[in-house]
Amino acid sequence: MSKWDDPLTSVLRGENLKTPPLWFMRQAGRYLPEYRAVRAKHQSFVEFCLHPEDAADVTLQPIRRFDMDAAILFADILLIPHALGQGVRFVTGEGPLLEPVVTDELLRRLDPTRVGEILAPVCETVERVREALPREKALIGFAGAPWTVATYMINGQGSKDPAATRRLVYSDPEMIDQLMAMLVDATSDYLIAQAKAGANALKLFDSWAGGLPEDLFRRLCLAPSIEIAKRVRAAADVPILYFPKGAGPLYSLAARADAFNGLAIDHALPVGWAREALGAAKALQGGLDPLLVVQGGPAMEHAAKTLLETFEDRPYIFNCGHGFVPETPPEHVAELVRIVRSH
Amino acid sequence: MSKWDDPLTSVLRGENLKTPPLWFMRQAGRYLPEYRAVRAKHQSFVEFCLHPEDAADVTLQPIRRFDMDAAILFADILLIPHALGQGVRFVTGEGPLLEPVVTDELLRRLDPTRVGEILAPVCETVERVREALPREKALIGFAGAPWTVATYMINGQGSKDPAATRRLVYSDPEMIDQLMAMLVDATSDYLIAQAKAGANALKLFDSWAGGLPEDLFRRLCLAPSIEIAKRVRAAADVPILYFPKGAGPLYSLAARADAFNGLAIDHALPVGWAREALGAAKALQGGLDPLLVVQGGPAMEHAAKTLLETFEDRPYIFNCGHGFVPETPPEHVAELVRIVRSH
Repeated sequence: MSKWDDPLTSVLRGENLKTPPLWFMRQAGRYLPEYRAVRAKHQSFVEFCLHPEDAADVTLQPIRRFDMDAAILFADILLIPHALGQGVRFVTGEGPLLEPVVTDELLRRLDPTRVGEILAPVCETVERVREALPREKALIGFAGAPWTVATYMINGQGSKDPAATRRLVYSDPEMIDQLMAMLVDATSDYLIAQAKAGANALKLFDSWAGGLPEDLFRRLCLAPSIEIAKRVRAAADVPILYFPKGAGPLYSLAARADAFNGLAIDHALPVGWAREALGAAKALQGGLDPLLVVQGGPAMEHAAKTLLETFEDRPYIFNCGHGFVPETPPEHVAELVRIVRSH
Repeated sequence: MSKWDDPLTSVLRGENLKTPPLWFMRQAGRYLPEYRAVRAKHQSFVEFCLHPEDAADVTLQPIRRFDMDAAILFADILLIPHALGQGVRFVTGEGPLLEPVVTDELLRRLDPTRVGEILAPVCETVERVREALPREKALIGFAGAPWTVATYMINGQGSKDPAATRRLVYSDPEMIDQLMAMLVDATSDYLIAQAKAGANALKLFDSWAGGLPEDLFRRLCLAPSIEIAKRVRAAADVPILYFPKGAGPLYSLAARADAFNGLAIDHALPVGWAREALGAAKALQGGLDPLLVVQGGPAMEHAAKTLLETFEDRPYIFNCGHGFVPETPPEHVAELVRIVRSH
């Protein structure tokens, strides 16, 4: 046992554990039959996220089944737009869809005053999970980073190249700055509330950080995420992970930011490059292609061992470079856990 | 005038010109009224691509209007699947759609024997354009790189994360290897035919090179593209540009491949990193965010000058990091040409 309470936060605070802690993005998700059973009780995905009893239940499912080292709060990055007043619906197989808005009207339609109240059930979920978890298991809270959330809000949905948002950055920088400022405020408060409710670590998902010119990455991904991390750490003693998915060589800028305790890496980031370019002190997390877990077998084992060997001399948390997909066989997940723990 | 016939191929052969040659991806495209007028004559996009008189006409339009240093053949990377027998249709606003196929049946349905015959009109377009162009203007031929074309063939269309194809790489590597081998053959022959018809340089578009783990990038993007480049250069003396869009730090592997004379970079690749990591000898091309050309004004000028200054001590070709979008005002393109030429 490390000097902190659990392996995950120990690693995020700079400790190098012989067997890295492990958890997985979307470890509570559609690939699990017990998840699908609870999901079926709710027509609306948002309603499900805001139902503390059921959200806590699915958060704990992968801990019960696989004994993961950390639970991640069951919620969604689009709860912030929902709480700001932009309608969200989730269509099976298509992912989240936000109510389309005329961008000129977006700011006028959002109401930042009720976010805490609307998202209070999420904090109740955190409390319930923390109470149910043993001390050596971390609970990770999370939110979307402002650029990623803004991209969804403006596009109405995910997109391979969030060009509509980037276009607006050039044509109406003031509107973007106001939206980003609103998201920084709401997200900081939301994460502070999660920490106060018992989250042991927090993760900021910047899923649309890829494809941006360097100056926009600095201004729209890095700066607001650092600001949030600073505010949160001033209010609560929790380590913070940042996940600028797809940022490529720009990961090196995030690695220099003291506000983050760790960086989550995607599966396209070359691990040799990451080891050299991202410093040895900051914790790294992830890197395995989640489609290898669909496949299982020797290819999955080989890739997992490569990650473990590449990062054995630094603080490292085992995870994929993206969330589990619904086709993932749970027995491959169990096998992966055995591979990591027996390495 | 350089020792070769035109500025573009001079730079690709290693010369550093004081004023870099310039051309733009999709410089012949929907943003030009004269293009839309010719496009309107054809119901089918494939038929348009295979109509030498009209394809040659639109290829030459941006040279007439903006005096670009190079024309790029008007064609599409999906002509290869079309010529192999997979139906292609283009839906306005949605991009190309391929006839969906059951992947088990894909290989059986493809016929590689008629590609040369079906794509002969493209070579006639090349001949017509080369005849019409002055000697100091280069004509660039092109094709899609095998991974990118395979991704379209399997997905049926572009996708933000070509997961279906990657999934197949893990589950059915033999099928993927056979498809890639067929694409390497067809693409090499097609590019050799373009070179023999008069193309002065060739570009391989690997638009879906991003998001791949390093081992898959080496195997599916780099190796087949190098093989094509070698075959083409053994048959014809033309320089070859490779565009592994979104490859991030993996661009450094492509920079080490002697088979490529130059690399096209996307707008998300940090230019400082590119200057340091990609060697000083190989030509680079591109990097400007095409949405800045939609915006125009000081932001476009500043970004263009940053590129010109960053790459002034190496062979460099001015271009964007992606194609012009239909909303691009032609007068901003004219302004950009002035900025680059007067730098």
